[in-house]
Amino acid sequence: MLTSKLIDDLIDIAIREDIGHGDITSNAIENNNKAIFNFIAKDEFIFCGTFIAQKVFNKIDPSLEVEFLINDGEIPEKNKTFGTVKGKTTSILKGERTALNFLQRLSGIATNTQKFIKKLNSDKIKILDTRKTTPGHRILQKYAVKVGGGSNHRFGLYDGVMLKDNHIDVAGGIKKAVETVRNNIPSTIKIEVETRTLKEVKEAVDAGADIIMLDNFKTDEIKKACEIINKKTKIEISGGVNLNNICNYSKFDIDYISIGALTHQAQSVDISLKFGGIL
Amino acid sequence: MLTSKLIDDLIDIAIREDIGHGDITSNAIENNNKAIFNFIAKDEFIFCGTFIAQKVFNKIDPSLEVEFLINDGEIPEKNKTFGTVKGKTTSILKGERTALNFLQRLSGIATNTQKFIKKLNSDKIKILDTRKTTPGHRILQKYAVKVGGGSNHRFGLYDGVMLKDNHIDVAGGIKKAVETVRNNIPSTIKIEVETRTLKEVKEAVDAGADIIMLDNFKTDEIKKACEIINKKTKIEISGGVNLNNICNYSKFDIDYISIGALTHQAQSVDISLKFGGIL
Amino acid sequence: MLTSKLIDDLIDIAIREDIGHGDITSNAIENNNKAIFNFIAKDEFIFCGTFIAQKVFNKIDPSLEVEFLINDGEIPEKNKTFGTVKGKTTSILKGERTALNFLQRLSGIATNTQKFIKKLNSDKIKILDTRKTTPGHRILQKYAVKVGGGSNHRFGLYDGVMLKDNHIDVAGGIKKAVETVRNNIPSTIKIEVETRTLKEVKEAVDAGADIIMLDNFKTDEIKKACEIINKKTKIEISGGVNLNNICNYSKFDIDYISIGALTHQAQSVDISLKFGGIL
Amino acid sequence: MLTSKLIDDLIDIAIREDIGHGDITSNAIENNNKAIFNFIAKDEFIFCGTFIAQKVFNKIDPSLEVEFLINDGEIPEKNKTFGTVKGKTTSILKGERTALNFLQRLSGIATNTQKFIKKLNSDKIKILDTRKTTPGHRILQKYAVKVGGGSNHRFGLYDGVMLKDNHIDVAGGIKKAVETVRNNIPSTIKIEVETRTLKEVKEAVDAGADIIMLDNFKTDEIKKACEIINKKTKIEISGGVNLNNICNYSKFDIDYISIGALTHQAQSVDISLKFGGIL
Amino acid sequence: MLTSKLIDDLIDIAIREDIGHGDITSNAIENNNKAIFNFIAKDEFIFCGTFIAQKVFNKIDPSLEVEFLINDGEIPEKNKTFGTVKGKTTSILKGERTALNFLQRLSGIATNTQKFIKKLNSDKIKILDTRKTTPGHRILQKYAVKVGGGSNHRFGLYDGVMLKDNHIDVAGGIKKAVETVRNNIPSTIKIEVETRTLKEVKEAVDAGADIIMLDNFKTDEIKKACEIINKKTKIEISGGVNLNNICNYSKFDIDYISIGALTHQAQSVDISLKFGGIL
Amino acid sequence: MLTSKLIDDLIDIAIREDIGHGDITSNAIENNNKAIFNFIAKDEFIFCGTFIAQKVFNKIDPSLEVEFLINDGEIPEKNKTFGTVKGKTTSILKGERTALNFLQRLSGIATNTQKFIKKLNSDKIKILDTRKTTPGHRILQKYAVKVGGGSNHRFGLYDGVMLKDNHIDVAGGIKKAVETVRNNIPSTIKIEVETRTLKEVKEAVDAGADIIMLDNFKTDEIKKACEIINKKTKIEISGGVNLNNICNYSKFDIDYISIGALTHQAQSVDISLKFGGIL
Repeated sequence: MLTSKLIDDLIDIAIREDIGHGDITSNAIENNNKAIFNFIAKDEFIFCGTFIAQKVFNKIDPSLEVEFLINDGEIPEKNKTFGTVKGKTTSILKGERTALNFLQRLSGIATNTQKFIKKLNSDKIKILDTRKTTPGHRILQKYAVKVGGGSNHRFGLYDGVMLKDNHIDVAGGIKKAVETVRNNIPSTIKIEVETRTLKEVKEAVDAGADIIMLDNFKTDEIKKACEIINKKTKIEISGGVNLNNICNYSKFDIDYISIGALTHQAQSVDISLKFGGIL
Repeated sequence: MLTSKLIDDLIDIAIREDIGHGDITSNAIENNNKAIFNFIAKDEFIFCGTFIAQKVFNKIDPSLEVEFLINDGEIPEKNKTFGTVKGKTTSILKGERTALNFLQRLSGIATNTQKFIKKLNSDKIKILDTRKTTPGHRILQKYAVKVGGGSNHRFGLYDGVMLKDNHIDVAGGIKKAVETVRNNIPSTIKIEVETRTLKEVKEAVDAGADIIMLDNFKTDEIKKACEIINKKTKIEISGGVNLNNICNYSKFDIDYISIGALTHQAQSVDISLKFGGIL
Repeated sequence: MLTSKLIDDLIDIAIREDIGHGDITSNAIENNNKAIFNFIAKDEFIFCGTFIAQKVFNKIDPSLEVEFLINDGEIPEKNKTFGTVKGKTTSILKGERTALNFLQRLSGIATNTQKFIKKLNSDKIKILDTRKTTPGHRILQKYAVKVGGGSNHRFGLYDGVMLKDNHIDVAGGIKKAVETVRNNIPSTIKIEVETRTLKEVKEAVDAGADIIMLDNFKTDEIKKACEIINKKTKIEISGGVNLNNICNYSKFDIDYISIGALTHQAQSVDISLKFGGIL
Repeated sequence: MLTSKLIDDLIDIAIREDIGHGDITSNAIENNNKAIFNFIAKDEFIFCGTFIAQKVFNKIDPSLEVEFLINDGEIPEKNKTFGTVKGKTTSILKGERTALNFLQRLSGIATNTQKFIKKLNSDKIKILDTRKTTPGHRILQKYAVKVGGGSNHRFGLYDGVMLKDNHIDVAGGIKKAVETVRNNIPSTIKIEVETRTLKEVKEAVDAGADIIMLDNFKTDEIKKACEIINKKTKIEISGGVNLNNICNYSKFDIDYISIGALTHQAQSVDISLKFGGIL
Repeated sequence: MLTSKLIDDLIDIAIREDIGHGDITSNAIENNNKAIFNFIAKDEFIFCGTFIAQKVFNKIDPSLEVEFLINDGEIPEKNKTFGTVKGKTTSILKGERTALNFLQRLSGIATNTQKFIKKLNSDKIKILDTRKTTPGHRILQKYAVKVGGGSNHRFGLYDGVMLKDNHIDVAGGIKKAVETVRNNIPSTIKIEVETRTLKEVKEAVDAGADIIMLDNFKTDEIKKACEIINKKTKIEISGGVNLNNICNYSKFDIDYISIGALTHQAQSVDISLKFGGIL
Repeated sequence: MLTSKLIDDLIDIAIREDIGHGDITSNAIENNNKAIFNFIAKDEFIFCGTFIAQKVFNKIDPSLEVEFLINDGEIPEKNKTFGTVKGKTTSILKGERTALNFLQRLSGIATNTQKFIKKLNSDKIKILDTRKTTPGHRILQKYAVKVGGGSNHRFGLYDGVMLKDNHIDVAGGIKKAVETVRNNIPSTIKIEVETRTLKEVKEAVDAGADIIMLDNFKTDEIKKACEIINKKTKIEISGGVNLNNICNYSKFDIDYISIGALTHQAQSVDISLKFGGIL
């Protein structure tokens, strides 16, 4: 199960911003009714977020019971119930909006990722996310990318090295940069070098990079880069890849395509939580 | 200036998720270079987020200087610099991604809101946001709605009353619900009643509601509702309003149209932060 | 039930300041005795605080059982048991002082409020609290005011507008101030204008204020103000109202009297927690 | 200067509860006016709280300048300015209520304590506070007791031992309890034994207590207890001491009188913050 | 049981630093296997840390069951199981390293303390710890000292007074310093004076110190100091005491020997947690 | 510079545990003297901790000036001043103990690491730390290892994969485990497989591991393992390596030796902070 202090802290903020000093309507019309509410899919989408719905509702009221009929990654039937929340009505109403706001976005990201996977239609190339995620939601959104069939690039600045122009200039060239970094990072971390020319690709190979990113390379350049690299490093394509052109990349002998739009341009899907009767 | 402990706490999480135990690349290639970086608009959009950019960069390094040439609500010239960050290069690179992730979304919301305002083209009807915001980002996103020309509905469950079916049933009818709530909420808070039929509209007027929401009313029903209400309460239209049909609502004598899509379906705009030279 | 992160955070501080690195006496004489302790009323008062007693004791030890024989708002019989705590003796002793410090003050506020309500003896005028509350305890103390029969003014600067001299001067007059604020606050929030002269009352009515506060108005002025307002806004009396003179206000056609002394000058009542036997 | 994480955390809560997601009035009528505001004493009292006023205002806006013309423990001239806040008007208004709520209570406690000191009129007997303080405010209120001329009993359960009936029973008698505790507490901490009879006083002396508390002893019993103790331990009187009878205690050869009412029954004094002109 | 917010906060940090955004291996090979793991002693040592092991594992997963066959202070048989953890394998593996890191150090401190106690071999002299503890671990490590048979000096700057050169100079001599401090500290706290010469010892006695520390006194000076003090204060020896020379101190009529090395130079003991079978 | 929220949070705890509600001695003898204090090396060691000393003192009092004459990694001259703190005496005394407790341990780790490096005396083999660090101090201690010439293994469970028996069993063999993990971890992370037999080594090579750990292999087995691996993966030796036998490993064609004792068995060095005069 996905757990992290970061997620708990985010949910805390989400509840604080919505409930503040209290739900004044519920406090006025206090009652102990218990009810069932149903999650209903109003769109077609890949569902993601069982755990976050549970966490949100149970943070508000540990006695609420949240259950889903499907797992993350499955597609709920449109206009049908795919999950339920049972318990004190006022507690459910307090968590409803926050839970839905999470589920709609995460399912949107999973669904969007799946579209890219299908268009690419490749067994060997992985589609990677980026750091273009909603601030505070990275762990959740990277999880949604995986649920949608994608793979994760580094989570942050702490679990991967991406050498860019700026680093390379300061270090004194690609070779020097790779060497310096290799001596100073954990032994379990790979070094990726961002390249813009075939010359840089050559240098990165010679420097012993683990992954080479071809940044905004044209089609014929990609081919040449693959030849230069000749399986000595992993290859990542980045820049300008979208749903319309991604199919053009399946022919290359590359390892990864990273796409900011997986998370950055995903649309929220439509999920509603409907009253299903008094318990 | 927009300040709240909630925003500080969100930025803290955003930095923790991106930097974790440290930026291993910068730690490896430590250097004291100072540089200037330029914010450049790659789209046409309404800018929003001066304060958040400042907060993110200064949380990482208080000595960074962040300045914008335009104010929130203005449109930067495409492909031109509209702001700068100056200071230690490694500090700027640490904050870059997080700052951009905030700015792109907030500017997207301001821009999206402005589109609705223009399409509606009304002096007297206000466009309201909803609680369909990204968890943890509500205060920021509601600010962006205002920057884009919209107005705010309640911030959360604590600063407004929205009586729904469920509350009304428990209280024993609209009249009883309004009365009970009136006696239990702060004197500064208005009571809004969500209605689905003209009969409910009538009851809400009689109960002394401050605002009546017409939920998914058809055009002719809206007209009749306005007659029933006859200026005794404020009127809010909700449900199914989009960029294509919003112009149809300008003719009604209503006060508000609330639209979840302002925040919920906004797309991030494209802003980049480019190296502008060593200082 | 009253819940808010603010209350949890306050209880955390209260426990930290009392227990610090540990209860050194209990740690020295560790024992697993279980006992029952009884809450006993040593004064006559309106009780308030069931939930806070439960929260304090259960934060220290989730296995403690805290039960009250009366509800908030009821008057316990003097020198009789009106509630109990059962469980590990050392845990009960750790929470005793903090729980009592909360209960005594909250019950004092409820009791004090009730006195004002009785003296006023009016069905239509509500007695309101103010922001003169103990820092960190506002939500609790405003709840105690309601338990004592009073009503709440705004909770803070975020859920109500009170236009004072200073704001009005900056905005350029009452009319301008009301208009500007109306365009910038949530649609669910009322605007109150603080007035000191009949001229200001007139302006506030014309400006479309929702509530007019008559600040330190003399008796005859209040009458004239009511005539000017003529039911167009709610009316709040403020300043100089005490237990001796409040009866003079019941004759006016006003909506609210706000009284800082409800919370600010309340005395703690006397409650003790007595050992009731080993379990 | 008084500093502790506990005080910072309390101020954080106080600001969160008052400002919430923002001061909606100031946000609407944003302006950069700078002004001076004056602290004015409306009662006669011993002032306490220079540091807390500074902390509150500077937490809201570090650029505010808060200065006092008198020190803690001095008596401001009635209706005269005894301190000032200078800076952005909206920032000052945000902090005003919270700062005053602190100052009024702390000055009330210092003033109340001073009354007891004067009534007792003894050079050798110290008046002690208790743990009957407002939850979350203990460190501040114990400081106010000292400002008023009183002394502090232990701050909490961690920095002093007070053996009560319950502990003594569990340990198997006073002698055993003192011994057990002595072997388990820090070497820097004294042991106080609460006694209710002369027999217990005798036992506590024999057990080697450092301080003996005479709990609700009558006048003649106090005299006998002093003889039994014969300077071998410190003596603390507790229970039933008030402003009317405290003068009766000055004749005894005792060390301390502890009085819950110092903090528990103190009234807030009247301090106002008045606009003093634009800067 | 040892509980404090400080310990909970430390465990939170420990888990955050180890697990970060997630245990990527467990997340990849998710499984619901349940197993038993055994704590095994690979050295001979005094065990300390039952509660901390429970807290660490239960913070990660409240359903884990942690049990020990021995109590804190007992010596587990070498190469035998002395405790178990049962539950979800992935949860146990997440807590393993952190729990062991705590246990090994705490048991090391208890074991080290016991060595000093045995070498000193005195019924009347207590061995005290100091503030030379691992930052963040003080409460735990002082507990381990007690488990090993030692006693605690003050926990921090808040629960004991130690007058050093610097304080004495500022106050204007030992007599003045003791008097000033006595008037300003809680009534339950003792005053200790650090002395370096027999002259200072004399002054401290005359000033009414509660404890006198003889800092780096030679053997013959200690004897003379004891004569000067003549039972009027407690006596603490400090400086240069180690396992080789501590036996020389048993002959003196002193109360305490404080030794930084108890915590500061303790070695971690060897404990392992071995897979014991699927449940 | 090393920065992380984890470090700030740890320092907060360290200050809270030492200062609590206040330094009662300093509060009693308040004074505004300013002084200089000197850091003096009482042992020979590699210094580590400039930043942590600065952080500790400046968290207590931002006006203190902390400067070091040497950098991390250098050896201070014995009994000479190698750094200074200037400012308010009471502030310096408050931070002294906590700062020293950090510096002594970190310098101890750097010094201990250096000993292993020198004994190994190899240009090509890196000495790695492990996760056997003091809970809450990992980032600091891993930094100290680097200062002493060592390299870092993964920081936690989030930035490296180490496949152990347990994982492999659950996954269904080494091949399956590597494959499953490869598909689920960030693209920037390497996979290490822990092996105990040559057969497992063979399987790990075939499975495409990035690093193979030879766990407690005998000398001749290491040689054979190197042959099997034949440069296809990195090789890490682990288990039973100490200062006496590490020189035997320099002859092998391996990449890393990981040693828990670097952090786990390091001794604190002796540093003192001595009064250097009034300013």
